[in-house]
Amino acid sequence: MNGEGEDADRWNRWGSASEAQPLPDSASELLAQLLELTPTPPAVPLPEVAMPVAEPDGAVLTALRAAVGTDHVLTSPAIRARHATGLSTPDLLRRRRGVLHRAPQAVVRPADHAEVLAVLDICSQHRVPVAPFGGGTSVVGGVTPTATAHLTIDLGRLDRILAVDAVSRTATLQAGLPTPRAAELLAEHGFTLGHVPQSYEYATIGGFAATRSCGQASTGYGRFDELVTELTVATPRGTIRVGRAPASAAGPDLRQLFLGSEGTLGVITDVTVRVRPIPAQTHYEGWRFESFAAGLHAVRRLAQEGPRATVLRLSDEVETLIGATGWGQSDGGCLLVVGYEGEQVHATAETAAAVLAAQDGQPLGAEPGRQWQRHRFDAPYLRDALLDAGAFAETLETAAYWSRLPEVHERVRAAILGALPEGTLVLAHVSHVYETGASLYFTVICSPGSDPIDRWRTAKAAASDAIARAGGTITHHHGVGTDHRDWYATEIGELAVDLLRTVKRQLDPAGILNPGILVP
Amino acid sequence: MNGEGEDADRWNRWGSASEAQPLPDSASELLAQLLELTPTPPAVPLPEVAMPVAEPDGAVLTALRAAVGTDHVLTSPAIRARHATGLSTPDLLRRRRGVLHRAPQAVVRPADHAEVLAVLDICSQHRVPVAPFGGGTSVVGGVTPTATAHLTIDLGRLDRILAVDAVSRTATLQAGLPTPRAAELLAEHGFTLGHVPQSYEYATIGGFAATRSCGQASTGYGRFDELVTELTVATPRGTIRVGRAPASAAGPDLRQLFLGSEGTLGVITDVTVRVRPIPAQTHYEGWRFESFAAGLHAVRRLAQEGPRATVLRLSDEVETLIGATGWGQSDGGCLLVVGYEGEQVHATAETAAAVLAAQDGQPLGAEPGRQWQRHRFDAPYLRDALLDAGAFAETLETAAYWSRLPEVHERVRAAILGALPEGTLVLAHVSHVYETGASLYFTVICSPGSDPIDRWRTAKAAASDAIARAGGTITHHHGVGTDHRDWYATEIGELAVDLLRTVKRQLDPAGILNPGILVP
Repeated sequence: MNGEGEDADRWNRWGSASEAQPLPDSASELLAQLLELTPTPPAVPLPEVAMPVAEPDGAVLTALRAAVGTDHVLTSPAIRARHATGLSTPDLLRRRRGVLHRAPQAVVRPADHAEVLAVLDICSQHRVPVAPFGGGTSVVGGVTPTATAHLTIDLGRLDRILAVDAVSRTATLQAGLPTPRAAELLAEHGFTLGHVPQSYEYATIGGFAATRSCGQASTGYGRFDELVTELTVATPRGTIRVGRAPASAAGPDLRQLFLGSEGTLGVITDVTVRVRPIPAQTHYEGWRFESFAAGLHAVRRLAQEGPRATVLRLSDEVETLIGATGWGQSDGGCLLVVGYEGEQVHATAETAAAVLAAQDGQPLGAEPGRQWQRHRFDAPYLRDALLDAGAFAETLETAAYWSRLPEVHERVRAAILGALPEGTLVLAHVSHVYETGASLYFTVICSPGSDPIDRWRTAKAAASDAIARAGGTITHHHGVGTDHRDWYATEIGELAVDLLRTVKRQLDPAGILNPGILVP
Repeated sequence: MNGEGEDADRWNRWGSASEAQPLPDSASELLAQLLELTPTPPAVPLPEVAMPVAEPDGAVLTALRAAVGTDHVLTSPAIRARHATGLSTPDLLRRRRGVLHRAPQAVVRPADHAEVLAVLDICSQHRVPVAPFGGGTSVVGGVTPTATAHLTIDLGRLDRILAVDAVSRTATLQAGLPTPRAAELLAEHGFTLGHVPQSYEYATIGGFAATRSCGQASTGYGRFDELVTELTVATPRGTIRVGRAPASAAGPDLRQLFLGSEGTLGVITDVTVRVRPIPAQTHYEGWRFESFAAGLHAVRRLAQEGPRATVLRLSDEVETLIGATGWGQSDGGCLLVVGYEGEQVHATAETAAAVLAAQDGQPLGAEPGRQWQRHRFDAPYLRDALLDAGAFAETLETAAYWSRLPEVHERVRAAILGALPEGTLVLAHVSHVYETGASLYFTVICSPGSDPIDRWRTAKAAASDAIARAGGTITHHHGVGTDHRDWYATEIGELAVDLLRTVKRQLDPAGILNPGILVP
């Protein structure tokens, strides 16, 4: 994104204003009954946003311009503002208010791996912190380092497909490729990545790798970290290129040190990923279960015994009632959406249907599946509409073993409800399943109060504590960023944190890479 | 293993003498025609083996005895000899000759994680190198550190199953559990690990984790590193316990730093692994392909399009002729053994059969499958018989993308044949398949000459160079040890090696853990 021009009105929303989706009337009525709505004041226009005034050092600017070209070192306020935060709800509220507490001094747009190395070299010499930036869709504070001044490396120019191996079914993609463009380029070869996170429209390949992203079709296609066979990382100490075979016993799997490193150990500049043929057929359908517990039992059966679906998405009672099929149009129970992609999907669906029916599932036919497909990217647009309507909406997520999942669900719900005013809605679903467990994704809608950011901070902390106590991981696919950093440290333990610090010092002796992100 | 008693005669063979398998007559005749056999002199009895005489430091012994009990600090020559090497062919030849250039000063047998920590603490204080030891089945020099004197930590007393979660299908197993015992313990709960490497009879759970082992049924059950959801590691700096959910985006996956670390970063004391119900049905069958190229094409189809088999094992022309179905009884072409385990295996086999037939495979029925199952653990016994008969036999392995596999096969064969005398046999098979590629496993049988260890060193170096040049990984499932260390460094690059050194220094400041293994 270049920060100006056609999508300038997208700056404080997920999508551009022209894509705005009004809330359904039923939703507005329900919200008005449940919540104290506080209509958001009109958003401050981008040119009027307040940011720290911090002139970049002249010598640094000169060196950067020499390294990447004058046109690719950008210092306009609009561009700085766009690269200042991710797109969590607190980020959006700060943008709407027009007050950013941090912003990059400049945005540098290197053309390739060599230029990324050059930028890191300059920043190391001058001890200028840098934040790598792809689609800017972090919802955990992942692009806003805690340094008092920093530069952002926007990877938007690393947008090419470098190689396709049709026999081995791999493709080498540059880090700055937005997902839809990657899909187009792969489609020219008949392939798909199968990675479809909710951030699909804007997120980039490098960001998926740096945060261990997981898409809606992960049950069938795998998590992003499972797709990566090789990666190239630019670090202040030089280049690391790891992975050279489908699998190896040659020492620790060093790819896994950079996947999930969130820009703190280096800048991932390209990844080689496993791809699959564009599916010949797709089939999505809905099932109803009496309760979330019954639904969990059924999806566990499918996850453990097969057949393997491509998408499995089970909403709890509240989400089914509120969100999944239109507001308040449910007749109770829980909705499961199952999707199959590939060849002979109908045979697979039939086998799976027998399993689901044996678990007391009631088939709802293809319509709920079509509905879900039609609306699969809607949630962040709906969040804009909720904010417009004066409600607060945010999400959080975890994963746990099957045996712990019901308790995690209950405890996190209770923690959120306990921390927020009456009328708060907590919706949840399972959307990524494994043989040993599943993810849990919560959506919270509440009265914003006078300081919604502070209110949410308290609720989120309560939820995070509940996740830790109930044995979940602090994040299944959003990443650690700044928001989860303290819980992450507890989750891996002090010695492991020390280890990460040591690795960081080794690769980034000047400590310039995303300080304050991930590593406490 | 305690080094004395019932299996004392196993010390210089894979299996005990009572399990010895004579070579088939046809094999003996063929070998006599092809090779210059050099009958091995009678093996030196264990009590007469020459080892470095190195008295352990008295203060160290006292401290160790206090930590683990006097009975668990062993210094008898027999025990020291048994823990001195792994079981590669050069290791066996050294054992038969009765000359070991390195051997532990003592073997310490801690009872649990806390005692392992205590031993590491003592050894760190006194700067005594230590080698963790499970089944001692390394074929890459993985249990013989290059220090002039060292102690061995035998994990044999960590042999319990700590937990089973039947809902989540996970089990927590201690590191010293031999695989058959782990199988028994899991079977009490109706589960199987599905991890069946050729070393099954002797190797241990911790060793699988430390070396990224991969079993014969990896196509269906997954590699060992894919089974591990959590692990506990004792390091000189304390305990690391990582993994707490089926999947996570909470930073780098630190499990992957310890999996494959070969005892250089810590001692893995337990792992939590994904388990599966004992399969209701199993079905194995054979197929014939005109050529290795045709067979590769067919197994790639199955790996990429399904249905997923549990075992896929394709022998090249020479292995088919020589080894797979009895010596010299093949009618040419290549043998594929396919195995299915689970429910409804016959339906799966039928679907797969259609795929294989469409790739010009000729069905050979169930007999070759039964044959393979019956003889799946025979190879190392056969190696003993070959050594007895005066031939030299050893194996090596790699993995590569499908597009590179034919070239890797050709180049490695050529490199081995070029480095060894006429008459050398090079057999190869694919036994682990992935969507993006497969493993390649080579068996070499040649005349031993006057110095078989030196002869093999030259041939192995030529093969390793060929693997690197053709784009394979230096090891798919044997590990790095000392034998692959130099190629490993080239494979991951100097900066990554530095990184590993840094991690090692952080966890093992005194540098006591397996010096000379893995990290150059």
